[in-house]
Amino acid sequence: MQERFLKKPLTGIIPPLVTPLADENSLDCPGLEKLIEHVLKGGVHGLFLLGTTGEGPSLSLKLKYQMVKRSSEIVNRRVPLLVGITDTSFAESINLAEHAAECGANALVLAPPYYFPPGQQELLEYFEHITPKLPLPLFLYNMPAMTKVNIDVDTLCKASEIDGVIGFKDSSCSMIKFHEYIAAMKDKTAFSLLIGPEELLAESVLFGGSGGIPGGANIFPQLYVNIYNAAKKGDITTILELQKKIFILRKLYSCGQYTSSLIKGIKCALNCLDICSSFMAEPFNAFGQKQSKEIIKILVELKLKN
Amino acid sequence: MQERFLKKPLTGIIPPLVTPLADENSLDCPGLEKLIEHVLKGGVHGLFLLGTTGEGPSLSLKLKYQMVKRSSEIVNRRVPLLVGITDTSFAESINLAEHAAECGANALVLAPPYYFPPGQQELLEYFEHITPKLPLPLFLYNMPAMTKVNIDVDTLCKASEIDGVIGFKDSSCSMIKFHEYIAAMKDKTAFSLLIGPEELLAESVLFGGSGGIPGGANIFPQLYVNIYNAAKKGDITTILELQKKIFILRKLYSCGQYTSSLIKGIKCALNCLDICSSFMAEPFNAFGQKQSKEIIKILVELKLKN
Amino acid sequence: MQERFLKKPLTGIIPPLVTPLADENSLDCPGLEKLIEHVLKGGVHGLFLLGTTGEGPSLSLKLKYQMVKRSSEIVNRRVPLLVGITDTSFAESINLAEHAAECGANALVLAPPYYFPPGQQELLEYFEHITPKLPLPLFLYNMPAMTKVNIDVDTLCKASEIDGVIGFKDSSCSMIKFHEYIAAMKDKTAFSLLIGPEELLAESVLFGGSGGIPGGANIFPQLYVNIYNAAKKGDITTILELQKKIFILRKLYSCGQYTSSLIKGIKCALNCLDICSSFMAEPFNAFGQKQSKEIIKILVELKLKN
Amino acid sequence: MQERFLKKPLTGIIPPLVTPLADENSLDCPGLEKLIEHVLKGGVHGLFLLGTTGEGPSLSLKLKYQMVKRSSEIVNRRVPLLVGITDTSFAESINLAEHAAECGANALVLAPPYYFPPGQQELLEYFEHITPKLPLPLFLYNMPAMTKVNIDVDTLCKASEIDGVIGFKDSSCSMIKFHEYIAAMKDKTAFSLLIGPEELLAESVLFGGSGGIPGGANIFPQLYVNIYNAAKKGDITTILELQKKIFILRKLYSCGQYTSSLIKGIKCALNCLDICSSFMAEPFNAFGQKQSKEIIKILVELKLKN
Repeated sequence: MQERFLKKPLTGIIPPLVTPLADENSLDCPGLEKLIEHVLKGGVHGLFLLGTTGEGPSLSLKLKYQMVKRSSEIVNRRVPLLVGITDTSFAESINLAEHAAECGANALVLAPPYYFPPGQQELLEYFEHITPKLPLPLFLYNMPAMTKVNIDVDTLCKASEIDGVIGFKDSSCSMIKFHEYIAAMKDKTAFSLLIGPEELLAESVLFGGSGGIPGGANIFPQLYVNIYNAAKKGDITTILELQKKIFILRKLYSCGQYTSSLIKGIKCALNCLDICSSFMAEPFNAFGQKQSKEIIKILVELKLKN
Repeated sequence: MQERFLKKPLTGIIPPLVTPLADENSLDCPGLEKLIEHVLKGGVHGLFLLGTTGEGPSLSLKLKYQMVKRSSEIVNRRVPLLVGITDTSFAESINLAEHAAECGANALVLAPPYYFPPGQQELLEYFEHITPKLPLPLFLYNMPAMTKVNIDVDTLCKASEIDGVIGFKDSSCSMIKFHEYIAAMKDKTAFSLLIGPEELLAESVLFGGSGGIPGGANIFPQLYVNIYNAAKKGDITTILELQKKIFILRKLYSCGQYTSSLIKGIKCALNCLDICSSFMAEPFNAFGQKQSKEIIKILVELKLKN
Repeated sequence: MQERFLKKPLTGIIPPLVTPLADENSLDCPGLEKLIEHVLKGGVHGLFLLGTTGEGPSLSLKLKYQMVKRSSEIVNRRVPLLVGITDTSFAESINLAEHAAECGANALVLAPPYYFPPGQQELLEYFEHITPKLPLPLFLYNMPAMTKVNIDVDTLCKASEIDGVIGFKDSSCSMIKFHEYIAAMKDKTAFSLLIGPEELLAESVLFGGSGGIPGGANIFPQLYVNIYNAAKKGDITTILELQKKIFILRKLYSCGQYTSSLIKGIKCALNCLDICSSFMAEPFNAFGQKQSKEIIKILVELKLKN
Repeated sequence: MQERFLKKPLTGIIPPLVTPLADENSLDCPGLEKLIEHVLKGGVHGLFLLGTTGEGPSLSLKLKYQMVKRSSEIVNRRVPLLVGITDTSFAESINLAEHAAECGANALVLAPPYYFPPGQQELLEYFEHITPKLPLPLFLYNMPAMTKVNIDVDTLCKASEIDGVIGFKDSSCSMIKFHEYIAAMKDKTAFSLLIGPEELLAESVLFGGSGGIPGGANIFPQLYVNIYNAAKKGDITTILELQKKIFILRKLYSCGQYTSSLIKGIKCALNCLDICSSFMAEPFNAFGQKQSKEIIKILVELKLKN
């Protein structure tokens, strides 16, 4: 039944939702509700929970399960709900997948196990072993900066033949690789090719991609929906206009000195917009006053704040 | 009480025990018992569970908890028991630490959370936040190939001041870095500096290290105990003799084509020696017949098999 | 005088010419002439000598000087001639620059010295020191895969203020970085931003880039000129059509197993098209029969050969 | 004739001489003389010109040739003279080798061409092609941080079979790799295995290495000669004492913020000791007053200065 709800290929903007936290081990539930309503109001085409931006790997099992359940209730089938089940443990991925299905999620997202990096053949076998045990259709997720392994074009081609694998999210940050994936999958018209980095969203859609999973859509969902629509129409003028705003917004991601600044920046911006808490799961801490001021300036520049 | 059992600094050979598996989600309990007896008979000075060699991150919570409990019962306080609690989730690390303490473990081992790589300051704060919540003394664990972050010398110095941090395992594979750690910690005589890679065990002890955590000690514990003792005495002749055997044994680790070959090789060798199952947790598979034959040859060369 | 010939910004397709070799230390002069005529006939907007594709660093000084002189005579000011002067020695770069000016070249191209990698501040000072000593305008060249250092956005901004620096070639293969360069340089309308990898040519021009330096234009210059023109007009349909051919042509680059396959593939294809020798400078060898056959197939697929 | 002068295997301490510069393109000849006398007085077993520490790749051909000639005259066959001929151009390497032979050098040192990284098979063929054209015996030089390629154990084994290849310098900084080289070459008793990083000098000799090429021996040659002798005798107590000093001296290398700090630190220290100029070849600049003060403190701590 869930499957029927899910258009094939899944297209458009599917924000990787941050996980609003009240404290170390509990959800900011009012914040989560506000966040989901904020994002849906922006016209997005789906939601992705427990990804990198969602701090999925940093959350306890209890918190992951709760996030899925609560989000599913709030979304209430208004858009497709994708749940990240990436885990270094095979069994825990399956357990979470089952929970997601019970909660009414529509699809799963799975990156390679991220401790001991597998070879391509091992990776393919892993996908072959796990997919049949999953209760929902699956998007594979390429995230080499975190998993230390790329899903090669050839591995994707073979994995896309597995019954149940319906799409791919590429966060390799390599547009050359994305062109390769597009070229390789060109005959599978029901297969969804989604891009991670928002800087590449417009061109990936121009060249045949299905859409994107932009972190910035937590903050400014319309911006990404609009650039997606412009790209679908081949409207370069509008794209260039909106691309400038995307490059303003991404300044939010470099207010701190570490790679964690990306998520810290999004959560801090959401807090400045009174949407949800900026609390970060360990090993990270929320931005302080200094960065908040910088972030407010950027939000003002984007006219998201006065 | 556990602490009193733990000599400070902890010295000698502490094998990183493999986790014998009967199948995907259950322990090979008879194998585990045989393995522990085999290793203890070799004269080792402690045991380390759920490390990299122990496939810790690949196991379900259920399996981790069971492995700790069962091992603790078998060891029965004959040697100190160290338990790896590395996890991308703060709460799950603490939960496992509490379970380990209840089971009678003596110390914990913690590598940085391994999905989103922290900066050095973030890493230090993480250690500062988690250590007070742990019921047992803590060894920090440097494993940059898996965690994507080095614990810098300066970070170690600061972290070693945290009450409860009693040692450090370095698997950076950089002997230059290990010399730096030795130089930096030279006044903390109760602090334990253990080396991961067995190829560097002898020299690390010659230059002031406390001992090692050699994967090969699952198979041939005496070899590592003997080279440790020779190094403590500065007996170069014996070291050179034993070092040759270490370089024969490590051929076990390169029978396959992927990095997983290290663990696959150890488990396959243990199976060839009738000690325990060679079953691997996902995303890996046990070596097949071809590699088993190579492995038997190496075991014969080491006189561990006829 | 040379400067007046050089449109600012320089735009369009400027192939990085291969260096046709008769043997280890001499030019294939008839091949060079055929190659230049072949490429000019394709409508290119300039030529770039002694780059990575030109095996610049592998050639003796004698050969470099000869290549510049002979090419300049053949081109005879029909298009602007850019000469790579990248060298680990400051003095040799200047010497070659002077030779290029004497031969009638129009601009120089300089990547960072590629042995000991400089920091960004060191790199900037290097550009500041060398530019005033050069007799021709300068393009900076970002080639981190070879030089081990990226020219950061901030460094480019500062370096673009140096009198004489008129453009930038980016071969980082990162489209995200290229967007950053475009954003940073948007007010310098006379500054040229050229992209290296041909897979990214169309989109770089769509988003405001000045053109490209595609290796494949040695073989099929019109293809790149056409996609450049389509991108200038925002003609997505044509772009998508031509992009497919670019992805066929690049199969030429992966017929061997090493990174050198890129240049070997181009030279082998040129040889198959009876344009010039496939001889490679050390440490590389020309492709053999096996790869030639593959390459001919690809040329047939592209209708460059019957 | 030169060969007879060269003991096989070459053993001991062979400092990689810095190249004292008066300005951008001329030698500091009095400084060079003082430096060579200083180093020879320290009891070293040979000299290595134009390596990484010697800024070989940064020098013009003219300067390289002059450095070889002048050094050879000063050394006057008191110790073996090794000359680095590493170049991205095959022909220039051979030209420099011939010049070195004419000047009376005793051996050559060659790292892989360092622009376009070759595969292992290409690398081996390169060594096979160049060695017969060289007038002097050859040491191969592994310097992956600069050349982007490791000389694998297997490649070394094969290359060591080439007539004329008599030794190997390993600057991989991996002691595990060095153990592998030792194990692989154990039957070739006339083959020299020299280590680059001085932090690993003692242990490399303890385990069978032939000696080292420590940059710090420009400043404090006796220290390295003494630790080499102690290691030859297996005198651990003395080694530990001297190793402490080596770790004080290496603080000289981290006074600046870039990797160039190593060479800058050595040249600055030599200048503080009134031995030679601290002038650096482009793209680097000499340390200023701030770093000089730090460096003097370290020299005082080492009792090399009052």
